[in-house]
Amino acid sequence: MFVFRRPIRFCEIDAARLVFFARFFDYCHEALEALFAEFPGGYPRMVQERDLGIPTVRLQADFRAPLRYGDVARFELHVLRIGTTSVTVKYEVKRDADDLLVATITHVIVLASFSSLRPRSIPDDLRALFAQHLVAGHSATLRPGLT
Amino acid sequence: MFVFRRPIRFCEIDAARLVFFARFFDYCHEALEALFAEFPGGYPRMVQERDLGIPTVRLQADFRAPLRYGDVARFELHVLRIGTTSVTVKYEVKRDADDLLVATITHVIVLASFSSLRPRSIPDDLRALFAQHLVAGHSATLRPGLT
Amino acid sequence: MFVFRRPIRFCEIDAARLVFFARFFDYCHEALEALFAEFPGGYPRMVQERDLGIPTVRLQADFRAPLRYGDVARFELHVLRIGTTSVTVKYEVKRDADDLLVATITHVIVLASFSSLRPRSIPDDLRALFAQHLVAGHSATLRPGLT
Amino acid sequence: MFVFRRPIRFCEIDAARLVFFARFFDYCHEALEALFAEFPGGYPRMVQERDLGIPTVRLQADFRAPLRYGDVARFELHVLRIGTTSVTVKYEVKRDADDLLVATITHVIVLASFSSLRPRSIPDDLRALFAQHLVAGHSATLRPGLT
Repeated sequence: MFVFRRPIRFCEIDAARLVFFARFFDYCHEALEALFAEFPGGYPRMVQERDLGIPTVRLQADFRAPLRYGDVARFELHVLRIGTTSVTVKYEVKRDADDLLVATITHVIVLASFSSLRPRSIPDDLRALFAQHLVAGHSATLRPGLT
Repeated sequence: MFVFRRPIRFCEIDAARLVFFARFFDYCHEALEALFAEFPGGYPRMVQERDLGIPTVRLQADFRAPLRYGDVARFELHVLRIGTTSVTVKYEVKRDADDLLVATITHVIVLASFSSLRPRSIPDDLRALFAQHLVAGHSATLRPGLT
Repeated sequence: MFVFRRPIRFCEIDAARLVFFARFFDYCHEALEALFAEFPGGYPRMVQERDLGIPTVRLQADFRAPLRYGDVARFELHVLRIGTTSVTVKYEVKRDADDLLVATITHVIVLASFSSLRPRSIPDDLRALFAQHLVAGHSATLRPGLT
Repeated sequence: MFVFRRPIRFCEIDAARLVFFARFFDYCHEALEALFAEFPGGYPRMVQERDLGIPTVRLQADFRAPLRYGDVARFELHVLRIGTTSVTVKYEVKRDADDLLVATITHVIVLASFSSLRPRSIPDDLRALFAQHLVAGHSATLRPGLT
């Protein structure tokens, strides 16, 4: 499990005084950027020097409780599946102060050429990084035929 | 079907020169705001005078093709289901110039008190508005037990 | 004077239930995009086919009154000065319903190569467009030495 | 001087592959939120328990160089003036990797009731916090008559 904590910013609140639902997906991307920060240069270097991007191909989200200004969102990131070119990530989003479950998000990204958007096989170092957070019962090697 | 056209703005592009995936959900909300504009005062008056809000409880999205600066996104909105308190909306997102299918999004909202967030029965005028865009084979009355 | 009306969107409100001050500058850019829409293809084509961009080099803003959800911002755009490569634009921002003055913004942009960011002389068609909105007492030709 | 470092996020880039100019003001507000984090509960508690807000009344910005994805913006915050109800803050924005001056921003905020927006005298603890970063030659006490 990779944990990413994100204080809610003043301008991310909507007219209902709640975090606007679309902002959660900004945070998902930030969580991935934080995960990639374990590599030198992080995601910017992946993009600029290795021409690697991670376009989103599928999202599913269930919202259980709202977040407000002053809250810290805690994204608990698990990898559900590592395919040939795609990775399925699950986030359990909790309110950090009291562990209230706020949302559950499943996010499928594809490793792709940043410039051409063509899918690419997941490089070994990235595969290893994702594998560190693979949940039990899911495997990178069990379903090699699926991408 | 309700149609909402949205030109991509300069600042909605990400570092990959594509519309950032989370922005699509901003547009979904704007499409609903445009739908509600058929009422006098639109969504702002619903919020301010009737204490009605539409928190999102579930989202599912499949992304097929990217959008770029200069594109116009066309959101074709259909209502799949009208429950007691919830509404399921489907958007087929197309690139307006050539009808390329860009994304398919399913969006479940709940009618709720804006101030307390408690679910509320869908008022008749709103129910009628959603019913105008209900697709064949789905019905507001067939599943009254489900909300 | 060029007029650009912009309804406030639900997600542009901050935790104080007001339009977040930085959003006003998003609207300024949108006002310019709307102005350029008088050319076929608008600003996207300027960028993509003519390699023309308009980086901001200076901003000054005075905020007098807040905007809220449900308001429509009316940007009254005047051109104060057209130099060799730069243009000074003034926006009087009003609440459309009652003409309340909300903000006054002065915005200096430079015409530049979109790809290299090097300043470029303002092309004649753009110069003519800006000149349509030049306020009395200011002139494109009076100060040719200044850029 | 208070220093706030802010990595540029993937979605803050515009179609020119630069940080969109309006985003700089988001960062200014974040810098202030970071400054207020020196108080227990930070700005959220100021807002929620003390009904204190900081609406922006004036901004001036000069942009010298662009920021790109992968850059870290370093905001060097100085207080230029502490009035009865207003504070003038200056940010020198630098590219953290090489100290390149990117922008200079002057930002005038007013201490106000968060709920009524009426100006309020700056409370002593906030005054002391701002005074820590007051630059030489400026003083909180020299111009008591000005707000």
